[in-house]
Amino acid sequence: MASKKATHQQTKQLNRDLVLKLIFDHETISRAEVARLTKLTRATVSEIVTGLMEEGLVEEIGYGESIGGKAPILLSLVADSRYLIGLNLAKDKFVGAVVNLRGQIKEMLEFPVNERDGVQALQLVYQMLDQLTAKGWKPLVGIGIGTPGLVNTREGVVVNAVNLDWQDLPLAQLLEARYRLPVSILNDSQATAIGEFVYGQDHPADSNLIVITVKHGIGAGILIHGRLFQGDGGGAGEIGHVVVQEDGALCRCGNRGCLETIASAHAVVRRARALAGEYPQSPLAQNPAAGLAEIEAAWRAGDALAQRVMSDAAQYLGGAIAALVGVLNIQKIVLTGDLACFGAPWLEQVRAAAARVSLRRLAQQTTLDFGLLDIQACILGASAFMLLENYDLLFIKTND
Amino acid sequence: MASKKATHQQTKQLNRDLVLKLIFDHETISRAEVARLTKLTRATVSEIVTGLMEEGLVEEIGYGESIGGKAPILLSLVADSRYLIGLNLAKDKFVGAVVNLRGQIKEMLEFPVNERDGVQALQLVYQMLDQLTAKGWKPLVGIGIGTPGLVNTREGVVVNAVNLDWQDLPLAQLLEARYRLPVSILNDSQATAIGEFVYGQDHPADSNLIVITVKHGIGAGILIHGRLFQGDGGGAGEIGHVVVQEDGALCRCGNRGCLETIASAHAVVRRARALAGEYPQSPLAQNPAAGLAEIEAAWRAGDALAQRVMSDAAQYLGGAIAALVGVLNIQKIVLTGDLACFGAPWLEQVRAAAARVSLRRLAQQTTLDFGLLDIQACILGASAFMLLENYDLLFIKTND
Repeated sequence: MASKKATHQQTKQLNRDLVLKLIFDHETISRAEVARLTKLTRATVSEIVTGLMEEGLVEEIGYGESIGGKAPILLSLVADSRYLIGLNLAKDKFVGAVVNLRGQIKEMLEFPVNERDGVQALQLVYQMLDQLTAKGWKPLVGIGIGTPGLVNTREGVVVNAVNLDWQDLPLAQLLEARYRLPVSILNDSQATAIGEFVYGQDHPADSNLIVITVKHGIGAGILIHGRLFQGDGGGAGEIGHVVVQEDGALCRCGNRGCLETIASAHAVVRRARALAGEYPQSPLAQNPAAGLAEIEAAWRAGDALAQRVMSDAAQYLGGAIAALVGVLNIQKIVLTGDLACFGAPWLEQVRAAAARVSLRRLAQQTTLDFGLLDIQACILGASAFMLLENYDLLFIKTND
Repeated sequence: MASKKATHQQTKQLNRDLVLKLIFDHETISRAEVARLTKLTRATVSEIVTGLMEEGLVEEIGYGESIGGKAPILLSLVADSRYLIGLNLAKDKFVGAVVNLRGQIKEMLEFPVNERDGVQALQLVYQMLDQLTAKGWKPLVGIGIGTPGLVNTREGVVVNAVNLDWQDLPLAQLLEARYRLPVSILNDSQATAIGEFVYGQDHPADSNLIVITVKHGIGAGILIHGRLFQGDGGGAGEIGHVVVQEDGALCRCGNRGCLETIASAHAVVRRARALAGEYPQSPLAQNPAAGLAEIEAAWRAGDALAQRVMSDAAQYLGGAIAALVGVLNIQKIVLTGDLACFGAPWLEQVRAAAARVSLRRLAQQTTLDFGLLDIQACILGASAFMLLENYDLLFIKTND
C-alpha cells in the first residue's frame, strides 16, 4: 500500500509541475487549454489550478475570447509570487539583483571590486548576497551566478577565474550552505547569451544563437536548439584565447596573440597607449590615462590612432566571428559588451571583416547585431539558468 | 467509430515501432526486458514480437541467463532482413555499398570519376545506383549519400558542390523518383563523422565528438549529444574555408589563405611541387608528378621539403583544432582522411601544434586520434543517417 500511495503522490506532483510549466510558458492560458495540452481531465486541471492559486503562483486575470459558449477565464503566472537572485561578477564591479519570475528586476546593487580577489572577492559575494537576501523580497527560490573564467556548472565549481584568483572554488556548495537556497553558477558570457536569448530580440524557443561578449576579456555563449551548450568541460565559447596573431602580444593565459590581446576592451585601451608614440598629434597621445571613453570620443572625431586600434579590433573580431560561423553555421550572432558604445559604424566594420573571410553564402545568411540588455543580460541569464536547472521552468519574454 | 479505429491503429503502430527500436538498440534482449522498458504488457509485447518475427525483422537466438525461474529467450534483430545503400561521392571516385541493418558491408562498388561533373556526374550516380539496386539485395529500405559541398539536408538539395559543379541540385527528389526509395543526403564530412561515431572507437550514445576529414578539401562533422549538428543552413563543420593565413594562397572559394590551401592533401601535394625549386636535393624536386605517396616516402626518409610541407600542414591543422576546441570544448577529436598515412609521429605534431595555441586546461582534457574506418566511414554514416531520419532507428556497434 505504501508504495502505491507514493506513486499516487508522485503522479500528483508530476501533473502539478506540468500544469505550472504550461502556465509559465504562456502569458495567459485557460483551464480548457491546459487540459487540452496536458491531456489531463478538466477536473484534474481545475484541482491543480486551485492548488497553484492557493500557493499564490497563479491568478485569474480576466476573460479570454469566447469560441462559442462561455468566455474562458484566463490564468496567468503571478510574476511576483517568488523571487530569484542573479549575480554578475564582472571585473570592476559585482552587480546583483533580485528578479521576479518574469525576469523583471526589482532591486539592483553594485559593489566596486577594487582589485579584490581570492578570499576577499568571495567575502564580497557574501556581503552582496547578505544584503540582497535581507531586502525582504520573499520567498526567494534560488541564486544564479555568472562569473568570469572556466566553470564546472554540474559540480558548481569555478575551475579557474584568473582575475578573481579562484581555482577549483566550490562556490555553489559554499553558497548553498550559507543561504539554504539552490545555486547555479556558469560562465558570465554563457549567462549573458541566455539573457539575450530570452529577453533580447525575438528568438524562437528552439533556435540557435551565438552571443559574443567583449569586455575585459572576450567570451561567447552558444545556444543550440534553445539550450546553452557548455561542451564537455564547461568551456564552450572560450574564444578569447584562440590565437589569431602569430607572435602577437603576450596574453594573461601565457600564450601570445590570443583574440583578447587585440580585440577586447582592455586590449583597445592598452594598444592606444602603447601606439601613442607613433601618433603625436592624437589627443590620446597627450593623455596617458586615456580610457575607452576618451578613445571613443577620439574615434568619433576621426583620430587616426583611435581608428587604427578600433579597426584592428574589428578585423580580428570579424575573423573570429567568421571562424565561429564556419564551424557552427549559426546564422544569428549577437555582439555585446563594452565596445558596443562605438555603435553601428563600427559594427559595420566587424561585419565587413567577417564577410571578407567567410564563404560568401554563409556570410550572406548570417546577421550580426548588438545585444539589447547590456549588463542585465548576465544577471537575467544566470537567473533564467537557475530556474531551468533547478525547477525545469523557462523564463519567457512577456509584453508587460 | 472511424476515428477511434484510426487511433487504435496508430497506437498499434507506435507500440510496434517502440518495440522494434528497443530490439534495434540492443544486441540481444528478452521479451520481459522489452516489457519492462516500454511499460507495455507482456501480452502486447509478445503479440508485437510475433508480428516482427513474421516480418522477418526479429529472431529468437537462444537463452539468456536466468535470474531465478525460466531462462528468458533472447530476441535479436535479423541484420540481413533489410538492406540500405550508402554512397560516398568522393573527388576521384564514387564509392557505393549495400549494407545491412547492422552496418555490415555486403557489397561495394567503386567508379572512377575522371573529372566528370554536372549532368555527367549525376549520370554516374545513376549508373552506380542502377547496379547496386540490381544486385538482388532485397528488400532495400533507403539510400544515404555523403557528398562534398554545402547540402540542405532537410530539402534534399546539394546547394553547392564546387568539384561536381552542382548548384541547387534536388538530388534526393531525383533519386526518390527514380528508385522509389527514401533518400537522405548530407555533406561527406558530416557523414564521415556519424560513421566514426557509430562504428569507430567506443563513444557513449549521447556524447559529443568532432571528426575532421582531410582529403582534397577539409571539413568537420560535429556530434552534439550523439546527434549530428548541421547548423542553421547545413554548413556546420565547414572549417576548410576559415582563413588561417593573411595573404595566403588563393583558394577555390575565392578567398586567400583558407585552411584548405595549406593543410589539405591537395595543398600538401601542390606546395611540395611549388617549393621544389628551393630544395634541389629533394627526391621530390626530381619528380614533377610527385603525389602523396611520394611525399610520404620522402617524409619518412627525412627529406627537408616533405618535412616542411607536412609540418606546415600539422601546424595549421593544429591551430584549427585549437579553435574548434576553444569554441566547443568537445574533448574527443578524431582526424581522418588522406593524411592519416603519415601516422602517429605526424599526428603528434598536430597534437603539439594544437596544444601550443590552446588554453592548457582545455588541451589537457582533449584527445586527438585517427579515425578507424577510412572511406567506409562516410558510407556507413550516410546509411546510419538515412535510417535515423526516415525510420527513427539507430545503428549500433555490435561485436560480430
